[in-house]
Amino acid sequence: MWIAIEKDTKLSLTRQIYIEIRKMIIEGTLTSGQKLPSTRQLSKELGISRNTALEVYNQMIAEGYLEARQGSGTIVSSGLQELKIPISELCNSKKESSSNNDTNIIDFCSGIPALELFPRKDWTKLYTQVCNNLPNEAYGYCDPCGVWELREAIAQYLLRSRGISCDPRRIMITSGSTQGLSLISTLLQKQNKKVLVENPSHPGLLKVIASTGCVIETIPADNQGLDTNLLSSTRDVSFVYTTPSHQYPLGSILSIQRRLSLVNFASENNCYIIEDDYDSEFRYEGQPISSLYELNPKHVIYIGSFSKILSPAIRLGFILLPEKLLLDYKTLKNYTDVHTEALTQYALASFIRTGQLEKHIWKMKKHYSRNRTHMLAELSKQFPDGFEILGHATGLHMVVHFHNVTFTTQLVEELANQDVLIYPIEHYLVGTKQDHGNEILMGYSHLSFPNITKGIQILRNVIGT
Amino acid sequence: MWIAIEKDTKLSLTRQIYIEIRKMIIEGTLTSGQKLPSTRQLSKELGISRNTALEVYNQMIAEGYLEARQGSGTIVSSGLQELKIPISELCNSKKESSSNNDTNIIDFCSGIPALELFPRKDWTKLYTQVCNNLPNEAYGYCDPCGVWELREAIAQYLLRSRGISCDPRRIMITSGSTQGLSLISTLLQKQNKKVLVENPSHPGLLKVIASTGCVIETIPADNQGLDTNLLSSTRDVSFVYTTPSHQYPLGSILSIQRRLSLVNFASENNCYIIEDDYDSEFRYEGQPISSLYELNPKHVIYIGSFSKILSPAIRLGFILLPEKLLLDYKTLKNYTDVHTEALTQYALASFIRTGQLEKHIWKMKKHYSRNRTHMLAELSKQFPDGFEILGHATGLHMVVHFHNVTFTTQLVEELANQDVLIYPIEHYLVGTKQDHGNEILMGYSHLSFPNITKGIQILRNVIGT
Repeated sequence: MWIAIEKDTKLSLTRQIYIEIRKMIIEGTLTSGQKLPSTRQLSKELGISRNTALEVYNQMIAEGYLEARQGSGTIVSSGLQELKIPISELCNSKKESSSNNDTNIIDFCSGIPALELFPRKDWTKLYTQVCNNLPNEAYGYCDPCGVWELREAIAQYLLRSRGISCDPRRIMITSGSTQGLSLISTLLQKQNKKVLVENPSHPGLLKVIASTGCVIETIPADNQGLDTNLLSSTRDVSFVYTTPSHQYPLGSILSIQRRLSLVNFASENNCYIIEDDYDSEFRYEGQPISSLYELNPKHVIYIGSFSKILSPAIRLGFILLPEKLLLDYKTLKNYTDVHTEALTQYALASFIRTGQLEKHIWKMKKHYSRNRTHMLAELSKQFPDGFEILGHATGLHMVVHFHNVTFTTQLVEELANQDVLIYPIEHYLVGTKQDHGNEILMGYSHLSFPNITKGIQILRNVIGT
Repeated sequence: MWIAIEKDTKLSLTRQIYIEIRKMIIEGTLTSGQKLPSTRQLSKELGISRNTALEVYNQMIAEGYLEARQGSGTIVSSGLQELKIPISELCNSKKESSSNNDTNIIDFCSGIPALELFPRKDWTKLYTQVCNNLPNEAYGYCDPCGVWELREAIAQYLLRSRGISCDPRRIMITSGSTQGLSLISTLLQKQNKKVLVENPSHPGLLKVIASTGCVIETIPADNQGLDTNLLSSTRDVSFVYTTPSHQYPLGSILSIQRRLSLVNFASENNCYIIEDDYDSEFRYEGQPISSLYELNPKHVIYIGSFSKILSPAIRLGFILLPEKLLLDYKTLKNYTDVHTEALTQYALASFIRTGQLEKHIWKMKKHYSRNRTHMLAELSKQFPDGFEILGHATGLHMVVHFHNVTFTTQLVEELANQDVLIYPIEHYLVGTKQDHGNEILMGYSHLSFPNITKGIQILRNVIGT
């Protein structure tokens, strides 16, 4: 029996011979009932040890390819249906072309924190300390609701930073806010019920909601947030998705009149409000806006995330759920991924408890505030009296209204050709046209001063005078 | 205006006053148009600084509760619809009663690794090294398919340990194998198509599949695994879920004849096979059983997990996907949770690359093998000639057939009263009764020698002679 043995391979000798014999059986070179050489013969023939030969045969007997017959040695098993498809071939391992990492591009996108400021040293030190002190059980399966220490730390953090008082039992840890939104949508998705979302809105998040089977209807948002006057005639609502602290992308704050209308609408129609509070930590004037949740904890589901305030890579977020939904949620989360990664949860709990999170947010806020100020100064320099800022001074982006400029596809492309990416507000609109042609979203959180300057210069040049 | 100020609270002065005034507005103590004391007055009245008073008013003006009227000072806004539901009260924060942590209980469950052997020092050292050397972008959003370094490390590991050759581009990192199964079920779930699963099977995993809307039919498994003879008449199949290397819970290996039938069935019916390879690393005799995947990579989806070989807490698993499903999978994963926690992925990639994973598996295998041997010795001592072991010597549990003992609900309860938990195979059966009344699953991976001894003694005592 001829079997080629290669020495420069990662496969063991046993494995190589096994693969070759199996190939012969599958391809029909060796047929049912056919006798194989004895292990003594095979070892001589191939110049391998008798043990290796024995190991191969035993393995193939265990798997049923071969049979050991008393007196007649080892034979190919009967009933091996001929394989009609070719055995897999070794594919070339080549890295996929990843997304554009061209560092020359100035991308005015929103929502990317200043990644270079991630507190690596403090974080890994804490992670090490925490992991070395955990009880053994912590390395096993954990509660689908999340690590208790983190839920408690978040409850205290919410009280300090947002004035939200809530029971940690209502705090569910999710793998980022996207998972929170996805699970809630799955939970609340019902036939003949619809989901209302703000328009404009984050297109990705609408897809998250739609991908769970929800039927979406939009409600326009303006400089006071979601227009609740347009809700009155709406019935059969499962939930309303809104960003009341900083409308995405417009940046408006939901007015208190509308807040009260909205929570009452939820009570009257027995539906839920999802309050996505994605960036209210970074408010550069005054205190954070109070939450909708406080006004109606039975009908408001609050979503928070650590992607913007710490890092998207750690995938940690949370939701505050009404008591009524807790059990169904827990079951769903359990069947989705059992629970969110636990060691990172323990580390974050400690990061919050020791006050490091708030210290970090404070540092980031100063950084973003400087970037924002720089962007405003550069805009004033390049477009004196030619623009206006919409929305409130919060978050990682601003919306800029340019007098006398319409952001056509052609203009956006021309800028992209010069390595500047901008985001017209019209891209965030669903269906019906609203009057946002002169407005773009401009993220500043992740950009350097020189890039902000250069990007706005190019914007100026391309727009012309 | 009377506002009680507490000193021993976590809330800032500003926040306390804000909450009290808001409460008066919402409860109607202060009504629309009503004038508030000037900030000078308020500061005197409450003994607070003028700045604090100003801060509260500015905040409430920003949120729309109050309005500043030139000449007439600060008034309560009009149009504040009266809130019809009470403001949330501070709930008591009390830890939920967690699952039974009574250390006196001897639980013969399956699937819990020896958590005390988790390589804490090595793991945290690697995590720290890796995190400190990552490029900044690694702290941002990552590829929904997973961290490239980990996908490459897994491809090499699979080749070394399982003889599986595959392109890393086909390896998708999931948050544990449960998420892998859940996402695939969602992807392949189609109206008028059914999912075939082995019977007996893991009840939790069946629920994962069913929770995505799949309609499940069962196919009996015996001492050669899934009985593929019963497949022939079946049509309209979306996928078949199977554990060919170590049938769960029976422990049988899918025979080669059935392997070939199964992959041909998939080709002929254009359906998929999900190969759940949950514990084949821990095979105590011979080499690991070859994968179904190798026989038909276009129709077999291979699921692997690091829960059993490292820790369930880190929630890392992976799936090998046919080319055809890659794009849809990526979209679905993106809308589910964007991606799996990335820093842990980088750490695991390094853990594999440096050979530490295989060293750890080797250590665990010796540990489990000793536990298994001890359990067999204790069973022989307590039940000489009274039992038989089913299935192959693999994994974290064995199935024991006791001659002349039927594991009734009463018997299981009696044992539980004596702090011993056992798992009759009948609990893993769906619908139709098969003859497994004398059999129980006995996990040994997480138990100490004394507990194995004691548990089997109690089993002996309760069963009687």
